[in-house]
Amino acid sequence: MVIFMVNYPIKKKRDNNTTYELNNKKIKDKNPIMANRGMNLEGLLNDSNEYYRANDIAIIHKKPIPIQIVKVDYPSRNKAVITEAYYKTPSTTDYNGIYKGKYIDFEAKENKNKTSFPLHNVHPHQVEHLKSIQRHGGIGFLIIYWIHTNQFFLYPIQKFAPHFDDYLGDGRKSIVYEDFLKEAYLIPEKYLPRLDFLSVLDEYLLK
Amino acid sequence: MVIFMVNYPIKKKRDNNTTYELNNKKIKDKNPIMANRGMNLEGLLNDSNEYYRANDIAIIHKKPIPIQIVKVDYPSRNKAVITEAYYKTPSTTDYNGIYKGKYIDFEAKENKNKTSFPLHNVHPHQVEHLKSIQRHGGIGFLIIYWIHTNQFFLYPIQKFAPHFDDYLGDGRKSIVYEDFLKEAYLIPEKYLPRLDFLSVLDEYLLK
Repeated sequence: MVIFMVNYPIKKKRDNNTTYELNNKKIKDKNPIMANRGMNLEGLLNDSNEYYRANDIAIIHKKPIPIQIVKVDYPSRNKAVITEAYYKTPSTTDYNGIYKGKYIDFEAKENKNKTSFPLHNVHPHQVEHLKSIQRHGGIGFLIIYWIHTNQFFLYPIQKFAPHFDDYLGDGRKSIVYEDFLKEAYLIPEKYLPRLDFLSVLDEYLLK
Repeated sequence: MVIFMVNYPIKKKRDNNTTYELNNKKIKDKNPIMANRGMNLEGLLNDSNEYYRANDIAIIHKKPIPIQIVKVDYPSRNKAVITEAYYKTPSTTDYNGIYKGKYIDFEAKENKNKTSFPLHNVHPHQVEHLKSIQRHGGIGFLIIYWIHTNQFFLYPIQKFAPHFDDYLGDGRKSIVYEDFLKEAYLIPEKYLPRLDFLSVLDEYLLK
C-alpha cells in the first residue's frame, strides 16, 4: 500500500510532461490534445484500413511494434509471459499492403508544431525503405497529421526525400507548412472511411 | 542459489519436451534438430531477404512478432522496460514485400512430421489473408520446411487453400508429402542467397 502511494505522484507527473516526442511509440497514449479529439491518427488509420479490408478495396495492415524480448516466464505449460522486453527502432515503416495490384507502403506521423514538421521524427532507414519501394514499382509515402490545423497530408516519398536528404546534409531541420501545401495532398476526412487516403492515390498517384 | 538449483531440472525438462508445436513463436529456439543444423528456417529466410535487399533484387522483411503490452516501467526518463506482455495470435503472415513491382506475401512453417504437414500449424485468418492478397493481384504462398527430408517447398496459396478449406470442413487434417511433390515447388538451396525462393516465382508464378 505504501509503495502505491509513494509511486502515484511520480506516475502522474510523467503523464503530463512532454517526453513523448522522444519515443514515437508512446505518443498516442500520452498526447492530451489527441485524447480530447476522441481518436488519434493510428486509430483513424486502423479504422480506415479495416473499412478498406471489409469492403475488399485494399489489404493494408499496421505492422506490430518491434520488440526485443529478453525474458519469458512460463507459469504453466502453455502460457508464456514476457517479463522483460524493450522497444526496438523500427527498420521499416508502420503500414504496408496492396491496392489495385500495387504495393503500398507508408509511415504515419503526428505533428504538434505550428509552422513546420521537424524531420528528426522520421528515421533515416524509413526514408531509405520508402525510396527503395518506389524504385521497385511500389507507392511509398508519409501520412502526416497537423494537430494545430487539423489537416491530414499525404506526402509522396519523391517529394519528401529531397527535404530529408537536405536535413541529413546539415540543411533545414524541418519542412515548412507552405511546402506541405505545395507538395503534399490533403486527405479527405469522411464518415466511411474516416481517412480516405486511397482516394488521393486514385486522383494523383495511380494515373 | 537454492532457487537456481531447484529450478534447473524443470527448465531442462521443458527444453526437451514437444510443447513447441503449440506455439509457433517458440519453435525456433527449442528445436534440437534445427539447432544442430546451425540455422533455422527463419534464419535462412532472413539471410536470403538481406541478400535480396543488399543487391536491390527485392524488398522483403519479416514482420515483428505481435505482442500485447500490458505493463511498461520507466526506470529513467528516456528508458522504457516492458515488464508484462503476451504473445498475440498473428492476424497476417510473417513476411511481405515487393519483387519486380509485385506484392509478395508469405508464411513460413517447419514440419517435423515424416509423412504429412499438419494443418493446425496454420491459422485460418492467415489463409484468408493470403487468398485476399492473391485476389488483389499479389502473390501469396507458404514456405514449408520438411525437417526429415531437408526440403524447402514453396506452396502457392491457390493450391494450398483447397486443402485448408477441406480441413476446416472436417476433412483431412494434413497435407501428405505426395501432394507437396505434385502441387508445391522445391526451393533451391544455394550459397547466396541461401534459399532462393524468388527463382521459383520467376520460373513458375511470374510468367
